[in-house]
Amino acid sequence: MRFDVLSLFPDMIREACNYSIIKRALNDLIIEINPVNPRDYTLDKHRKVDDTPYGGGAGMLLACQPYIDALKSIPKLKNSKTIIMTPQGECFNQSMAKEFSKFEQLIIICGHYEGFDERIIQLSEAQEISIGDFVMTGGELPALCIIDSVIRLLQGVLGDDESFENDSHYDGLLEHPHYTKPREYEGLCVPEILLNGNHEKIREWRRLQQFIVTKNKRPDLFEKFLGTELSDFDKKILKIFNEI
Amino acid sequence: MRFDVLSLFPDMIREACNYSIIKRALNDLIIEINPVNPRDYTLDKHRKVDDTPYGGGAGMLLACQPYIDALKSIPKLKNSKTIIMTPQGECFNQSMAKEFSKFEQLIIICGHYEGFDERIIQLSEAQEISIGDFVMTGGELPALCIIDSVIRLLQGVLGDDESFENDSHYDGLLEHPHYTKPREYEGLCVPEILLNGNHEKIREWRRLQQFIVTKNKRPDLFEKFLGTELSDFDKKILKIFNEI
Repeated sequence: MRFDVLSLFPDMIREACNYSIIKRALNDLIIEINPVNPRDYTLDKHRKVDDTPYGGGAGMLLACQPYIDALKSIPKLKNSKTIIMTPQGECFNQSMAKEFSKFEQLIIICGHYEGFDERIIQLSEAQEISIGDFVMTGGELPALCIIDSVIRLLQGVLGDDESFENDSHYDGLLEHPHYTKPREYEGLCVPEILLNGNHEKIREWRRLQQFIVTKNKRPDLFEKFLGTELSDFDKKILKIFNEI
Repeated sequence: MRFDVLSLFPDMIREACNYSIIKRALNDLIIEINPVNPRDYTLDKHRKVDDTPYGGGAGMLLACQPYIDALKSIPKLKNSKTIIMTPQGECFNQSMAKEFSKFEQLIIICGHYEGFDERIIQLSEAQEISIGDFVMTGGELPALCIIDSVIRLLQGVLGDDESFENDSHYDGLLEHPHYTKPREYEGLCVPEILLNGNHEKIREWRRLQQFIVTKNKRPDLFEKFLGTELSDFDKKILKIFNEI
Protein backbone atom coordinates (compact mmCIF):
# COMPACT_ATOMS: atom_id res chain seq x y z
CA MET A 1 0.00 0.00 0.00
CA ARG A 2 1.21 3.45 -0.85
CA PHE A 3 0.75 6.54 1.34
CA ASP A 4 1.31 10.00 -0.13
CA VAL A 5 1.33 12.70 2.53
CA LEU A 6 1.07 16.37 1.58
CA SER A 7 2.77 18.23 4.37
CA LEU A 8 4.87 21.33 5.01
CA PHE A 9 6.89 19.16 7.43
CA PRO A 10 7.91 16.14 5.33
CA ASP A 11 10.82 15.34 7.68
CA MET A 12 8.43 15.02 10.58
CA ILE A 13 6.55 12.36 8.60
CA ARG A 14 9.76 10.60 7.58
CA GLU A 15 11.18 10.54 11.09
CA ALA A 16 8.05 9.25 12.77
CA CYS A 17 7.89 6.41 10.25
CA ASN A 18 11.30 5.25 11.39
CA TYR A 19 10.02 3.35 14.43
CA SER A 20 8.38 0.11 15.38
CA ILE A 21 5.73 -1.36 13.14
CA ILE A 22 5.69 1.39 10.52
CA LYS A 23 9.46 0.99 10.08
CA ARG A 24 9.13 -2.78 9.79
CA ALA A 25 6.35 -2.50 7.19
CA LEU A 26 8.55 -0.10 5.19
CA ASN A 27 11.54 -2.45 5.41
CA ASP A 28 9.37 -5.40 4.36
CA LEU A 29 8.16 -3.36 1.36
CA ILE A 30 4.54 -3.85 2.43
CA ILE A 31 4.10 -0.09 2.38
CA GLU A 32 5.67 2.93 0.79
CA ILE A 33 5.43 6.41 2.32
CA ASN A 34 5.94 9.41 0.13
CA PRO A 35 5.88 12.85 1.76
CA VAL A 36 5.19 15.70 -0.68
CA ASN A 37 5.88 19.27 0.34
CA PRO A 38 3.45 21.81 -1.19
CA ARG A 39 6.19 24.42 -0.70
CA ASP A 40 8.12 22.69 -3.49
CA TYR A 41 5.20 23.48 -5.80
CA THR A 42 4.50 27.10 -5.01
CA LEU A 43 4.84 29.58 -7.86
CA ASP A 44 5.40 32.42 -5.39
CA LYS A 45 8.91 33.85 -5.65
CA HIS A 46 9.27 33.86 -1.85
CA ARG A 47 8.09 30.22 -1.70
CA LYS A 48 5.02 31.32 0.25
CA VAL A 49 2.21 28.79 0.68
CA ASP A 50 -0.19 30.91 2.70
CA ASP A 51 -1.89 34.26 2.64
CA THR A 52 -4.28 36.44 4.66
CA PRO A 53 -7.99 35.56 4.80
CA TYR A 54 -10.54 37.44 2.73
CA GLY A 55 -12.91 39.24 5.04
CA GLY A 56 -10.19 39.79 7.64
CA GLY A 57 -9.38 37.96 10.82
CA ALA A 58 -6.41 36.43 12.59
CA GLY A 59 -4.01 33.98 11.05
CA MET A 60 -2.94 32.83 7.64
CA LEU A 61 -4.63 30.39 5.27
CA LEU A 62 -3.09 27.74 3.06
CA ALA A 63 -3.54 28.80 -0.54
CA CYS A 64 -4.96 26.72 -3.39
CA GLN A 65 -2.12 26.80 -5.92
CA PRO A 66 0.69 25.01 -4.02
CA TYR A 67 -1.65 22.38 -2.59
CA ILE A 68 -3.56 21.62 -5.76
CA ASP A 69 -0.38 21.51 -7.85
CA ALA A 70 1.34 19.25 -5.30
CA LEU A 71 -1.69 16.99 -5.37
CA LYS A 72 -1.65 16.85 -9.17
CA SER A 73 2.02 15.79 -9.06
CA ILE A 74 1.15 12.53 -7.29
CA PRO A 75 0.63 9.58 -9.65
CA LYS A 76 -2.80 8.17 -8.86
CA LEU A 77 -3.11 4.41 -8.55
CA LYS A 78 -6.32 2.75 -9.65
CA ASN A 79 -7.67 1.99 -6.20
CA SER A 80 -6.88 5.28 -4.52
CA LYS A 81 -8.49 7.40 -1.82
CA THR A 82 -7.79 10.99 -0.82
CA ILE A 83 -8.46 12.38 2.63
CA ILE A 84 -7.84 15.80 4.14
CA MET A 85 -7.24 16.35 7.85
CA THR A 86 -9.63 19.02 9.15
CA PRO A 87 -11.32 19.54 12.50
CA GLN A 88 -14.62 19.66 10.59
CA GLY A 89 -14.11 16.13 9.30
CA GLU A 90 -15.83 12.88 10.08
CA CYS A 91 -14.36 11.30 13.18
CA PHE A 92 -11.84 8.56 12.37
CA ASN A 93 -12.59 5.14 13.89
CA GLN A 94 -11.64 1.49 13.57
CA SER A 95 -14.12 0.71 10.81
CA MET A 96 -12.65 3.55 8.72
CA ALA A 97 -9.19 2.08 9.39
CA LYS A 98 -10.46 -1.22 7.97
CA GLU A 99 -12.03 0.55 4.98
CA PHE A 100 -8.86 2.57 4.23
CA SER A 101 -6.68 -0.56 4.50
CA LYS A 102 -8.40 -1.96 1.41
CA PHE A 103 -7.10 0.79 -0.87
CA GLU A 104 -3.86 0.55 -2.85
CA GLN A 105 -3.13 4.19 -2.15
CA LEU A 106 -4.11 6.65 0.54
CA ILE A 107 -3.35 10.31 -0.17
CA ILE A 108 -3.45 12.43 2.99
CA ILE A 109 -3.52 16.22 2.86
CA CYS A 110 -2.22 17.84 6.05
CA GLY A 111 -2.81 21.45 6.91
CA HIS A 112 -0.94 23.61 9.35
CA TYR A 113 -1.69 26.87 11.15
CA GLU A 114 -5.13 28.38 10.60
CA GLY A 115 -6.57 26.14 7.92
CA PHE A 116 -7.19 25.58 4.24
CA ASP A 117 -8.71 27.79 1.60
CA GLU A 118 -12.11 26.10 1.27
CA ARG A 119 -11.48 25.50 -2.42
CA ILE A 120 -8.63 23.08 -1.66
CA ILE A 121 -11.21 20.84 0.00
CA GLN A 122 -13.60 21.20 -2.93
CA LEU A 123 -11.05 20.71 -5.72
CA SER A 124 -9.22 17.79 -4.09
CA GLU A 125 -12.52 15.91 -3.68
CA ALA A 126 -10.96 14.59 -0.50
CA GLN A 127 -12.97 13.18 2.36
CA GLU A 128 -12.60 15.43 5.41
CA ILE A 129 -11.36 13.44 8.38
CA SER A 130 -10.75 14.45 11.98
CA ILE A 131 -9.27 12.27 14.69
CA GLY A 132 -11.30 13.80 17.48
CA ASP A 133 -12.96 16.85 18.98
CA PHE A 134 -9.79 18.71 19.82
CA VAL A 135 -7.68 21.28 18.03
CA MET A 136 -4.15 20.67 16.85
CA THR A 137 -1.52 22.79 15.16
CA GLY A 138 -1.20 20.61 12.10
CA GLY A 139 -2.49 17.53 10.36
CA GLU A 140 0.83 15.66 10.59
CA LEU A 141 0.29 13.88 13.91
CA PRO A 142 -3.33 12.92 13.09
CA ALA A 143 -2.16 11.66 9.68
CA LEU A 144 0.50 9.52 11.38
CA CYS A 145 -2.13 8.10 13.75
CA ILE A 146 -4.23 7.09 10.75
CA ILE A 147 -1.24 5.60 8.93
CA ASP A 148 -0.30 3.56 12.01
CA SER A 149 -3.80 2.22 12.55
CA VAL A 150 -4.26 1.34 8.87
CA ILE A 151 -0.85 -0.30 8.44
CA ARG A 152 -1.34 -2.73 11.30
CA LEU A 153 -4.37 -4.16 9.48
CA LEU A 154 -2.37 -4.98 6.33
CA GLN A 155 -1.49 -8.58 5.73
CA GLY A 156 2.01 -9.51 6.88
CA VAL A 157 2.55 -6.47 9.11
CA LEU A 158 1.74 -7.99 12.48
CA GLY A 159 3.37 -11.30 13.35
CA ASP A 160 1.31 -14.30 14.45
CA ASP A 161 2.04 -13.37 18.03
CA GLU A 162 0.67 -9.86 17.60
CA SER A 163 -2.78 -10.68 16.31
CA PHE A 164 -5.05 -7.67 16.21
CA GLU A 165 -8.16 -9.70 16.78
CA ASN A 166 -7.96 -9.22 20.53
CA ASP A 167 -7.48 -5.48 20.21
CA SER A 168 -9.92 -3.10 21.80
CA HIS A 169 -12.53 -1.90 19.31
CA TYR A 170 -11.84 -4.86 17.04
CA ASP A 171 -15.24 -6.41 17.74
CA GLY A 172 -16.83 -3.44 19.45
CA LEU A 173 -15.80 -4.24 23.04
CA LEU A 174 -12.89 -2.92 25.06
CA GLU A 175 -10.14 -5.29 26.14
CA HIS A 176 -10.16 -7.36 29.32
CA PRO A 177 -7.39 -6.69 31.89
CA HIS A 178 -4.02 -8.33 31.19
CA TYR A 179 -1.44 -9.62 33.66
CA THR A 180 2.13 -10.78 33.32
CA LYS A 181 4.86 -11.84 35.78
CA PRO A 182 5.30 -11.56 38.72
CA ARG A 183 2.25 -13.11 40.38
CA GLU A 184 2.33 -10.44 43.04
CA TYR A 185 3.61 -6.89 42.67
CA GLU A 186 3.43 -4.31 45.46
CA GLY A 187 0.67 -6.34 47.08
CA LEU A 188 -1.44 -6.69 43.93
CA CYS A 189 -2.06 -10.27 42.78
CA VAL A 190 -2.91 -11.79 39.41
CA PRO A 191 -6.48 -13.20 39.49
CA GLU A 192 -6.38 -16.91 40.48
CA ILE A 193 -8.35 -18.01 37.44
CA LEU A 194 -5.52 -16.99 35.06
CA LEU A 195 -3.09 -19.28 36.88
CA ASN A 196 -5.03 -22.56 36.87
CA GLY A 197 -4.66 -23.47 33.20
CA ASN A 198 -8.38 -24.08 32.53
CA HIS A 199 -8.57 -22.49 29.10
CA GLU A 200 -12.34 -22.58 28.76
CA LYS A 201 -12.78 -20.87 32.14
CA ILE A 202 -10.12 -18.30 31.23
CA ARG A 203 -11.88 -17.57 27.96
CA GLU A 204 -15.17 -17.04 29.79
CA TRP A 205 -13.58 -14.89 32.49
CA ARG A 206 -11.87 -12.68 29.91
CA ARG A 207 -15.02 -12.22 27.86
CA LEU A 208 -16.99 -11.40 31.00
CA GLN A 209 -14.34 -8.81 31.93
CA GLN A 210 -14.72 -7.29 28.48
CA PHE A 211 -18.45 -6.93 29.11
CA ILE A 212 -17.80 -5.36 32.53
CA VAL A 213 -15.04 -2.99 31.39
CA THR A 214 -17.00 -1.82 28.33
CA LYS A 215 -20.23 -1.35 30.28
CA ASN A 216 -18.37 0.70 32.94
CA LYS A 217 -16.05 2.75 30.78
CA ARG A 218 -17.96 3.08 27.52
CA PRO A 219 -21.67 2.39 28.02
CA ASP A 220 -22.24 3.80 24.50
CA LEU A 221 -20.10 1.04 22.94
CA PHE A 222 -21.76 -1.59 25.13
CA GLU A 223 -25.25 -0.56 23.99
CA LYS A 224 -24.08 -0.73 20.39
CA PHE A 225 -22.58 -4.19 20.96
CA LEU A 226 -25.83 -5.48 22.45
CA GLY A 227 -27.60 -4.37 19.29
CA THR A 228 -25.45 -6.65 17.12
CA GLU A 229 -26.09 -10.34 16.51
CA LEU A 230 -24.45 -12.17 19.43
CA SER A 231 -22.73 -15.54 19.15
CA ASP A 232 -23.93 -18.42 21.37
CA PHE A 233 -20.81 -17.90 23.49
CA ASP A 234 -21.59 -14.20 23.97
CA LYS A 235 -25.21 -15.02 24.83
CA LYS A 236 -23.95 -17.32 27.57
CA ILE A 237 -21.58 -14.64 28.90
CA LEU A 238 -24.36 -12.05 28.79
CA LYS A 239 -26.49 -14.30 30.98
CA ILE A 240 -23.68 -14.51 33.57
CA PHE A 241 -23.12 -10.74 33.24
CA ASN A 242 -26.79 -10.02 33.90
CA GLU A 243 -26.74 -12.20 37.01
CA ILE A 244 -23.85 -10.41 38.73
CA MET B 1 4.64 23.48 31.93
CA ARG B 2 6.56 20.25 32.16
CA PHE B 3 5.73 17.08 30.23
CA ASP B 4 7.26 13.76 31.29
CA VAL B 5 6.65 11.03 28.74
CA LEU B 6 7.26 7.38 29.61
CA SER B 7 8.01 5.70 26.32
CA LEU B 8 10.11 2.90 24.87
CA PHE B 9 10.74 5.25 21.93
CA PRO B 10 12.07 8.44 23.54
CA ASP B 11 13.73 9.58 20.30
CA MET B 12 10.39 9.48 18.53
CA ILE B 13 9.05 11.91 21.15
CA ARG B 14 12.16 14.13 20.93
CA GLU B 15 12.11 14.28 17.13
CA ALA B 16 8.42 15.08 16.82
CA CYS B 17 8.86 17.95 19.28
CA ASN B 18 11.38 19.53 16.97
CA TYR B 19 8.81 21.15 14.70
CA SER B 20 6.51 24.12 14.51
CA ILE B 21 4.72 25.28 17.63
CA ILE B 22 6.06 22.61 20.01
CA LYS B 23 9.61 23.55 19.00
CA ARG B 24 8.90 27.22 19.48
CA ALA B 25 7.38 26.64 22.93
CA LEU B 26 10.48 24.62 23.88
CA ASN B 27 12.82 27.35 22.61
CA ASP B 28 10.84 30.00 24.48
CA LEU B 29 11.14 27.90 27.68
CA ILE B 30 7.36 27.86 28.06
CA ILE B 31 7.49 24.08 28.19
CA GLU B 32 9.96 21.34 28.99
CA ILE B 33 9.61 17.83 27.56
CA ASN B 34 11.33 14.99 29.31
CA PRO B 35 11.11 11.53 27.72
CA VAL B 36 11.79 8.68 30.16
CA ASN B 37 12.54 5.20 28.86
CA PRO B 38 11.23 2.40 31.12
CA ARG B 39 13.91 0.18 29.58
CA ASP B 40 16.50 2.24 31.47
CA TYR B 41 14.82 1.13 34.71
CA THR B 42 14.37 -2.58 34.13
CA LEU B 43 16.11 -4.91 36.59
CA ASP B 44 16.09 -7.71 33.99
CA LYS B 45 19.58 -8.64 32.85
CA HIS B 46 18.48 -8.70 29.21
CA ARG B 47 16.85 -5.25 29.61
CA LYS B 48 13.46 -6.83 28.92
CA VAL B 49 10.37 -4.71 29.69
CA ASP B 50 7.68 -7.20 28.69
CA ASP B 51 6.62 -10.77 29.31
CA THR B 52 3.97 -13.31 28.28
CA PRO B 53 0.39 -12.95 29.58
CA TYR B 54 -0.91 -15.09 32.43
CA GLY B 55 -3.70 -17.28 31.15
CA GLY B 56 -2.13 -17.54 27.69
CA GLY B 57 -2.84 -15.67 24.49
CA ALA B 58 -0.98 -13.82 21.76
CA GLY B 59 1.44 -10.99 22.36
CA MET B 60 3.58 -9.63 25.10
CA LEU B 61 2.58 -7.39 27.99
CA LEU B 62 4.46 -4.49 29.53
CA ALA B 63 5.55 -5.50 33.01
CA CYS B 64 5.06 -3.54 36.24
CA GLN B 65 8.61 -3.16 37.49
CA PRO B 66 10.22 -1.08 34.72
CA TYR B 67 7.18 1.17 34.33
CA ILE B 68 6.53 1.75 38.03
CA ASP B 69 10.22 2.36 38.76
CA ALA B 70 10.52 4.75 35.80
CA LEU B 71 7.46 6.58 37.08
CA LYS B 72 8.91 6.86 40.59
CA SER B 73 12.09 8.38 39.12
CA ILE B 74 10.18 11.44 37.90
CA PRO B 75 10.17 14.36 40.36
CA LYS B 76 6.55 15.28 40.94
CA LEU B 77 5.66 18.95 40.89
CA LYS B 78 2.91 20.19 43.18
CA ASN B 79 0.26 20.66 40.53
CA SER B 80 0.78 17.44 38.59
CA LYS B 81 -1.42 15.05 36.64
CA THR B 82 -0.66 11.56 35.35
CA ILE B 83 -2.40 10.00 32.36
CA ILE B 84 -1.93 6.65 30.65
CA MET B 85 -2.72 6.09 26.99
CA THR B 86 -5.04 3.09 26.61
CA PRO B 87 -7.79 2.24 24.14
CA GLN B 88 -10.07 1.73 27.16
CA GLY B 89 -9.60 5.32 28.27
CA GLU B 90 -11.89 8.28 28.27
CA CYS B 91 -11.93 9.97 24.90
CA PHE B 92 -9.70 13.05 24.76
CA ASN B 93 -11.42 16.29 23.74
CA GLN B 94 -10.94 20.04 23.77
CA SER B 95 -12.28 20.53 27.29
CA MET B 96 -9.75 17.98 28.58
CA ALA B 97 -7.04 19.90 26.69
CA LYS B 98 -8.12 23.03 28.57
CA GLU B 99 -8.18 21.14 31.87
CA PHE B 100 -4.71 19.61 31.31
CA SER B 101 -3.24 23.00 30.31
CA LYS B 102 -3.85 24.25 33.86
CA PHE B 103 -1.41 21.76 35.41
CA GLU B 104 2.27 22.51 36.03
CA GLN B 105 3.20 18.97 35.00
CA LEU B 106 1.61 16.33 32.81
CA ILE B 107 3.06 12.83 33.09
CA ILE B 108 2.05 10.64 30.14
CA ILE B 109 2.56 6.86 30.19
CA CYS B 110 2.75 5.36 26.70
CA GLY B 111 2.37 1.67 26.02
CA HIS B 112 3.46 -0.27 23.00
CA TYR B 113 2.53 -3.64 21.52
CA GLU B 114 -0.20 -5.60 23.31
CA GLY B 115 -0.80 -3.52 26.40
CA PHE B 116 -0.05 -2.93 30.06
CA ASP B 117 -0.13 -5.26 33.01
CA GLU B 118 -3.34 -4.04 34.67
CA ARG B 119 -1.44 -3.27 37.86
CA ILE B 120 0.54 -0.50 36.12
CA ILE B 121 -2.77 1.32 35.63
CA GLN B 122 -3.79 0.71 39.25
CA LEU B 123 -0.47 1.63 40.86
CA SER B 124 0.19 4.72 38.74
CA GLU B 125 -3.24 6.11 39.64
CA ALA B 126 -3.20 7.55 36.16
CA GLN B 127 -6.32 8.61 34.30
CA GLU B 128 -6.83 6.33 31.29
CA ILE B 129 -7.08 8.39 28.12
CA SER B 130 -7.76 7.37 24.54
CA ILE B 131 -7.72 9.67 21.53
CA GLY B 132 -10.44 7.77 19.69
CA ASP B 133 -12.11 4.49 18.85
CA PHE B 134 -9.27 3.07 16.81
CA VAL B 135 -6.31 0.86 17.60
CA MET B 136 -2.72 1.98 17.37
CA THR B 137 0.62 0.30 17.87
CA GLY B 138 1.77 2.58 20.65
CA GLY B 139 0.83 5.50 22.81
CA GLU B 140 3.52 7.80 21.41
CA LEU B 141 1.52 9.40 18.58
CA PRO B 142 -1.60 9.88 20.73
CA ALA B 143 0.60 11.38 23.49
CA LEU B 144 2.09 13.80 20.97
CA CYS B 145 -1.40 14.79 19.80
CA ILE B 146 -2.34 15.59 23.40
CA ILE B 147 0.89 17.53 23.99
CA ASP B 148 0.31 19.58 20.84
CA SER B 149 -3.29 20.42 21.71
CA VAL B 150 -2.42 21.34 25.31
CA ILE B 151 0.64 23.43 24.45
CA ARG B 152 -1.22 25.69 22.07
CA LEU B 153 -3.51 26.75 24.92
CA LEU B 154 -0.61 27.92 27.10
CA GLN B 155 -0.06 31.62 27.41
CA GLY B 156 2.57 32.98 25.04
CA VAL B 157 2.64 30.00 22.69
CA LEU B 158 0.40 31.30 19.93
CA GLY B 159 1.12 34.77 18.61
CA ASP B 160 -1.57 37.46 18.46
CA ASP B 161 -2.15 36.53 14.86
CA GLU B 162 -2.76 32.87 15.67
CA SER B 163 -5.56 33.27 18.19
CA PHE B 164 -7.18 29.97 19.04
CA GLU B 165 -10.52 31.53 19.77
CA ASN B 166 -11.70 30.94 16.23
CA ASP B 167 -10.62 27.32 16.24
CA SER B 168 -13.12 24.58 15.65
CA HIS B 169 -14.38 23.10 18.90
CA TYR B 170 -13.29 26.19 20.81
CA ASP B 171 -16.86 27.24 21.51
CA GLY B 172 -18.58 24.04 20.47
CA LEU B 173 -19.12 24.87 16.78
CA LEU B 174 -17.04 23.90 13.75
CA GLU B 175 -15.27 26.60 11.77
CA HIS B 176 -16.77 28.58 8.89
CA PRO B 177 -15.13 28.23 5.45
CA HIS B 178 -12.01 30.33 4.84
CA TYR B 179 -10.76 31.91 1.64
CA THR B 180 -7.53 33.56 0.62
CA LYS B 181 -6.12 34.91 -2.66
CA PRO B 182 -6.77 34.61 -5.55
CA ARG B 183 -10.41 35.70 -5.90
CA GLU B 184 -10.97 33.00 -8.47
CA TYR B 185 -9.17 29.67 -8.71
CA GLU B 186 -10.06 27.02 -11.27
CA GLY B 187 -13.47 28.60 -11.67
CA LEU B 188 -14.27 28.74 -7.95
CA CYS B 189 -14.89 32.22 -6.55
CA VAL B 190 -14.59 33.70 -3.08
CA PRO B 191 -18.09 34.61 -1.74
CA GLU B 192 -18.87 38.27 -2.57
CA ILE B 193 -19.66 39.18 1.02
CA LEU B 194 -16.04 38.61 2.10
CA LEU B 195 -14.83 41.17 -0.44
CA ASN B 196 -17.05 44.13 0.39
CA GLY B 197 -15.44 45.18 3.67
CA ASN B 198 -18.66 45.31 5.73
CA HIS B 199 -17.30 43.78 8.92
CA GLU B 200 -20.63 43.37 10.69
CA LYS B 201 -22.08 41.54 7.67
CA ILE B 202 -18.96 39.39 7.41
CA ARG B 203 -19.21 38.48 11.09
CA GLU B 204 -22.85 37.48 10.64
CA TRP B 205 -22.13 35.48 7.49
CA ARG B 206 -19.29 33.59 9.16
CA ARG B 207 -21.31 32.77 12.24
CA LEU B 208 -24.20 31.60 10.07
CA GLN B 209 -21.79 29.37 8.11
CA GLN B 210 -20.61 27.89 11.42
CA PHE B 211 -24.22 27.01 12.24
CA ILE B 212 -24.71 25.46 8.77
CA VAL B 213 -21.42 23.51 8.72
CA THR B 214 -21.90 22.17 12.25
CA LYS B 215 -25.53 21.20 11.66
CA ASN B 216 -24.56 19.35 8.45
CA LYS B 217 -21.33 17.69 9.52
CA ARG B 218 -21.79 17.19 13.23
CA PRO B 219 -25.48 17.33 14.21
CA ASP B 220 -24.47 15.96 17.65
CA LEU B 221 -22.30 19.03 18.34
CA PHE B 222 -25.00 21.36 17.03
CA GLU B 223 -27.63 19.89 19.38
CA LYS B 224 -25.21 20.32 22.27
CA PHE B 225 -24.53 23.94 21.26
CA LEU B 226 -28.25 24.73 21.16
CA GLY B 227 -28.51 23.46 24.73
CA THR B 228 -26.02 26.08 25.98
CA GLU B 229 -26.87 29.66 26.88
CA LEU B 230 -26.74 31.61 23.62
CA SER B 231 -25.53 35.19 23.32
CA ASP B 232 -27.84 37.80 21.81
CA PHE B 233 -25.73 37.67 18.65
CA ASP B 234 -26.14 33.89 18.40
CA LYS B 235 -29.89 34.20 19.00
CA LYS B 236 -30.08 36.58 16.06
CA ILE B 237 -28.05 34.22 13.85
CA LEU B 238 -30.19 31.27 14.94
CA LYS B 239 -33.28 33.15 13.77
CA ILE B 240 -31.73 33.70 10.31
CA PHE B 241 -30.58 30.05 10.29
CA ASN B 242 -34.09 28.79 11.07
CA GLU B 243 -35.53 30.87 8.23
CA ILE B 244 -33.30 29.43 5.49
